Amino acid sequence: MKTINLVGYGNVGFHLAKALMKSNLFVLQRIYTRSEHSVDPDFPHLFIHDIHKLPVADITIISVTDKAIEELSTQLPFENQLVVHTSGTFSMDGLSSKNRKGVFYPLQTFSKAKDLTFSQIPLCLETEYKDDYSLLESLAKALSENVYAISSEQRQNLHVTAVFVCNFVNHLFTIGKEISDENDIPFDIFYPLIDETVSKIHSLEPRKAQTGPAIREDYATINKHLLKISNDNYKNIYKLLTNSIIQNGKKF
Amino acid sequence: MKTINLVGYGNVGFHLAKALMKSNLFVLQRIYTRSEHSVDPDFPHLFIHDIHKLPVADITIISVTDKAIEELSTQLPFENQLVVHTSGTFSMDGLSSKNRKGVFYPLQTFSKAKDLTFSQIPLCLETEYKDDYSLLESLAKALSENVYAISSEQRQNLHVTAVFVCNFVNHLFTIGKEISDENDIPFDIFYPLIDETVSKIHSLEPRKAQTGPAIREDYATINKHLLKISNDNYKNIYKLLTNSIIQNGKKF
Repeated sequence: MKTINLVGYGNVGFHLAKALMKSNLFVLQRIYTRSEHSVDPDFPHLFIHDIHKLPVADITIISVTDKAIEELSTQLPFENQLVVHTSGTFSMDGLSSKNRKGVFYPLQTFSKAKDLTFSQIPLCLETEYKDDYSLLESLAKALSENVYAISSEQRQNLHVTAVFVCNFVNHLFTIGKEISDENDIPFDIFYPLIDETVSKIHSLEPRKAQTGPAIREDYATINKHLLKISNDNYKNIYKLLTNSIIQNGKKF
Repeated sequence: MKTINLVGYGNVGFHLAKALMKSNLFVLQRIYTRSEHSVDPDFPHLFIHDIHKLPVADITIISVTDKAIEELSTQLPFENQLVVHTSGTFSMDGLSSKNRKGVFYPLQTFSKAKDLTFSQIPLCLETEYKDDYSLLESLAKALSENVYAISSEQRQNLHVTAVFVCNFVNHLFTIGKEISDENDIPFDIFYPLIDETVSKIHSLEPRKAQTGPAIREDYATINKHLLKISNDNYKNIYKLLTNSIIQNGKKF
């Protein structure tokens, strides 16, 4: 079996470890975390807190905040191994040159409190050396059905899009929940609407799926809504997105 | 069987007619549309284009753009019948007083090109007279499992929230598709991410499901992303939503 090290145990590392535990081809050898508080009670024996004690592995996966990737890659106590990071934005080049570089970017939103089906996650791979690609690909294919070769340039564009279609979408859900809480409306009344909004774009181009007062240029409704929104920030978001929908509607 | 008239045949009217066709308790009697081009080839015999020829029905449903509701309700050639509209914003009072007023608001996003399960749609009801509520409720329950008594005030708040969680969310999908098209990335690579973003909030409060560079206050990534976005409108949306996520993160 091939061995894997994990450096960092945030939302991505947590789900990656759970997925690796189920693999028959790869074994999770050690997990490095800075703090002893991050130890997972499911497999505490795997955790170490001194990076200089990390043993050699076939693949070391650095899954930490972007600004810590370079320094941690420099501190690894071995050379000429395959070392990859999981960031959507950080360049592959930013890894220390003492090891062979690569990227293992899962295009998904991870929260420790939410289980997910790892096998459906698109895994976006890149390696410095062609020979390492097949090793990284064998790991990816052991964990997921959706594996892609993606350059650093493409990955950064993927990440920008992911922010729009995931992080910003979730923030709109947060705003929606806040408004409905203020008005004693149970938020689950919106679940069929939200589910259908997403179901639609699987079969219809989003541009063609657009409904609501903005695309109809129904200014009477738009103005009534603006009077209802008390939070200035949310009012500005309403205005900006409404104008953007109206402008987009005129493009076609 | 009780009889139903439909005034208007837009996205809502279209799906409402299809659902009514399956009912054993209610029969769709006539559909009024201004234009002869709106006739549905599935049941062309139901359509009329002179509103003065609309026969009396147990319930007449006006499903047109808000600014046409009042005038059409005035032009109806009968009195003292139950007449409801399907708008999220228009007040019940705005209907002509010559008939008994009500609201039948389906909280859903409708496009003619996309089939949907009508039985899951939350139907939000209101009637001027208490006695009419049970009649309207019997229609609603024949079409959907999710029926709610909702006041005009509550309905307007529902509608504002629906704009955030549906119309604006769909616009973010439109932006995401535009960016990925520009970079030759097939948009379906984002489907597992989008599906998971929605799946998460069924079990996790949206505020707790937030991930991405904004909630981490990862300004290096945020600035890289802003450099990548060429459309000024989308750049402003990125900035405003990012700041809103950061501010929200500090609230708790």
